[in-house]
Amino acid sequence: MSKVIATYLIHDEKDIEKKAEGIALGLTVGTWTDLPQLEREQLRKHKGEVVHIQVLEDSERANRYFGKRLKRAIVQIAYPTANFSADIPALLTTVFGKLSLDGEVRLLDITFSNEWKKQFPGPRFGIDGIRQKVDVYDRPLLMSIFKGVIGRDIAYLTEQLKQQALGGVDLVKDDEILFDSDLLPFEKRITAGKAVLNEVYEKTGKRTLYAVNLTGKTFELKEKAKRAVELGADILLFNVFAYGLDVLQGLREDKEIAIPIMAHPAFSGALTPSEFYGIKASLLLGKLLRLAGADFVLFPSPYGSVALDKEEAIGIAAALTDEKEPFKRSFPVPSAGIHPGLVPLLFRDFGRDSIVNAGGGIHGHPDGAEGGGKAFRAAIAAVLAGKSLHEAARENDALRKAIDLWGAIEVTS
Amino acid sequence: MSKVIATYLIHDEKDIEKKAEGIALGLTVGTWTDLPQLEREQLRKHKGEVVHIQVLEDSERANRYFGKRLKRAIVQIAYPTANFSADIPALLTTVFGKLSLDGEVRLLDITFSNEWKKQFPGPRFGIDGIRQKVDVYDRPLLMSIFKGVIGRDIAYLTEQLKQQALGGVDLVKDDEILFDSDLLPFEKRITAGKAVLNEVYEKTGKRTLYAVNLTGKTFELKEKAKRAVELGADILLFNVFAYGLDVLQGLREDKEIAIPIMAHPAFSGALTPSEFYGIKASLLLGKLLRLAGADFVLFPSPYGSVALDKEEAIGIAAALTDEKEPFKRSFPVPSAGIHPGLVPLLFRDFGRDSIVNAGGGIHGHPDGAEGGGKAFRAAIAAVLAGKSLHEAARENDALRKAIDLWGAIEVTS
Ligand SMILES: [Mg+2]
Ligand SMILES: [Mg+2]
Repeated sequence: MSKVIATYLIHDEKDIEKKAEGIALGLTVGTWTDLPQLEREQLRKHKGEVVHIQVLEDSERANRYFGKRLKRAIVQIAYPTANFSADIPALLTTVFGKLSLDGEVRLLDITFSNEWKKQFPGPRFGIDGIRQKVDVYDRPLLMSIFKGVIGRDIAYLTEQLKQQALGGVDLVKDDEILFDSDLLPFEKRITAGKAVLNEVYEKTGKRTLYAVNLTGKTFELKEKAKRAVELGADILLFNVFAYGLDVLQGLREDKEIAIPIMAHPAFSGALTPSEFYGIKASLLLGKLLRLAGADFVLFPSPYGSVALDKEEAIGIAAALTDEKEPFKRSFPVPSAGIHPGLVPLLFRDFGRDSIVNAGGGIHGHPDGAEGGGKAFRAAIAAVLAGKSLHEAARENDALRKAIDLWGAIEVTS
Repeated sequence: MSKVIATYLIHDEKDIEKKAEGIALGLTVGTWTDLPQLEREQLRKHKGEVVHIQVLEDSERANRYFGKRLKRAIVQIAYPTANFSADIPALLTTVFGKLSLDGEVRLLDITFSNEWKKQFPGPRFGIDGIRQKVDVYDRPLLMSIFKGVIGRDIAYLTEQLKQQALGGVDLVKDDEILFDSDLLPFEKRITAGKAVLNEVYEKTGKRTLYAVNLTGKTFELKEKAKRAVELGADILLFNVFAYGLDVLQGLREDKEIAIPIMAHPAFSGALTPSEFYGIKASLLLGKLLRLAGADFVLFPSPYGSVALDKEEAIGIAAALTDEKEPFKRSFPVPSAGIHPGLVPLLFRDFGRDSIVNAGGGIHGHPDGAEGGGKAFRAAIAAVLAGKSLHEAARENDALRKAIDLWGAIEVTS
């Protein structure tokens, strides 16, 4: 019998064992001990089960916060997959639907049988497929973000795109707050972007891909995405948490939308940051986004001002690239606050199969975005060659200027 | 120039005024003071603005929780609607996209110009339209929920439906964890449910409507909902937070899905309960669900074990029924832990234009679901007649039994 096992952190005044039993029954067959034997036989395969309870020590911090003494435990509950359809909304409703409203409960993890996972797509391209598209196999990729394009026009956008590409970045992504507008229409961004990136390619031989922000109403997204594909779009950026994980999956599963999808973490902070409530980031941004089919996942880096706990950030990347999963791996993109001097840290924490992504660290370079890109590429090359950034900066003007401005954190292994 | 104004609760170590300015610019034009005059002219209508900062007193509670001294303020920021498309994902990405990841920020409210609201549907039926459908105008409606139907068959479901209808409830809703399955297929639930409700109507003259749970993959929902309409479904129950607010709106806006939609709060507890993070319930479950088109909104009552703050619960109901909004009113359905003895409280807190909704308080009645419905109907009639429940119970056996079992809280006005 196939089961999904959800792991929760629970704070409660009452007996946690009873609470756990109440969840396991309440979210499945309702009652058990009162049932006649015959009905039990019939319902056994639908009954939720408490798999494990790990009692935690009392936390003075939690007791102070809630103003009462609470018991604490990590609780694992198994839900038979016979009870729900194989889609993410049914999964979330089952394991954290009503329960999310029931006191101090945080969802930490969900584990699935491989049988059940088969019903989900995972990334269409994944890390290996993306590497083929950019023709780069031996280093972390480099991505940059448009800066201050709201209210600007296509000429402004394409000029900025060109500068970024000239710096040697592998990918450029739209700002997640850039929507379809008269000034910067979706289709025109794709075609004009493509033209300027081809121009750069003719000149430098370097291919840069552009991730265009797919926006608008849910039930119009597929048509829009298909039009993007027709126009030759490279990648779709998608604010998945403002829509729904299953919308991402729907895009991924459409054969006519066969380009990579880049998931942006916008709005996910409404669900993840509390220690008592919501959902652990490694589950939401890691395991579930990969299951649903994100080829890339952006998440806050542990270094910038918009920072995620280092353990959480590494947990997301681990879930995206775990080799034991039957899915292609998603590219981890730790973002925010990144400058070339952080590349050694990024490499230590996220490894070769990750993407170095910068906004201010590209555009704020003394030589502009082109210089920013070059500084990052030099930093990445240095780290791979086992050189310190300071050493590499002696031979690279762009990197030297970046380090002078932002500093560098060397990592000695 | 049309604007959307978002209100946040912010805790921060640094100067809140600077932080607010950073948000207003960072989520719109990016920079301002460095811009040449000409560009300022061009970008002025896209620039976010800090509208108001209400500094709050330091909170020892917050300082203790975060382990540092934090400044606190309610901050209002205006975002020009010129910057984003008129859809909920664009709205959420703009006002709480990246910002949700940026430290201790909670989204409390969003206000829209009436001009902007015109681009949203609101409920298709609303309270008045629902009242016409059930032909009840002068009292709170009564709804009951199936109990323990997971793993059961159609015969079990329809028998339970019949018992509930015989008790005189106006509405019966599916359990939100009931999905489309071989045992209880969606279409069969509709047709078999309809047949049994017609049977009861022939016998009693009372119409009861059945809200069937619309589940499955997002991009298959519309076809499924249309099929439901063809089969004569009364109402669609929808786990909107497991999908996305815009999915609800898409269903609402489809002319071929012209039946009421009942929004279930499942999974919304992943977003609302923290005092420092996430989204205030009255915004998410109140204002936004109404904007998107929910005819009914379930939310935790302030009385049960799965309880919401009373102020929050009343805030949701107020947002759903606010007469100043240019939308039809949504029916507030305070749920969980409701028994007949709570009807006076429900009436005091939520008024005539609300729905009394019960699961255990119907099925757990000594005379079964039929007795439970009758007890509730008697309690509602008593409250409207200005009688105490104890007084009414003298003339109503079902109510007396309910009060003996669960007690009653009388409200003296
Ligand atoms: Mg941005
Ligand atoms: Mg239920």
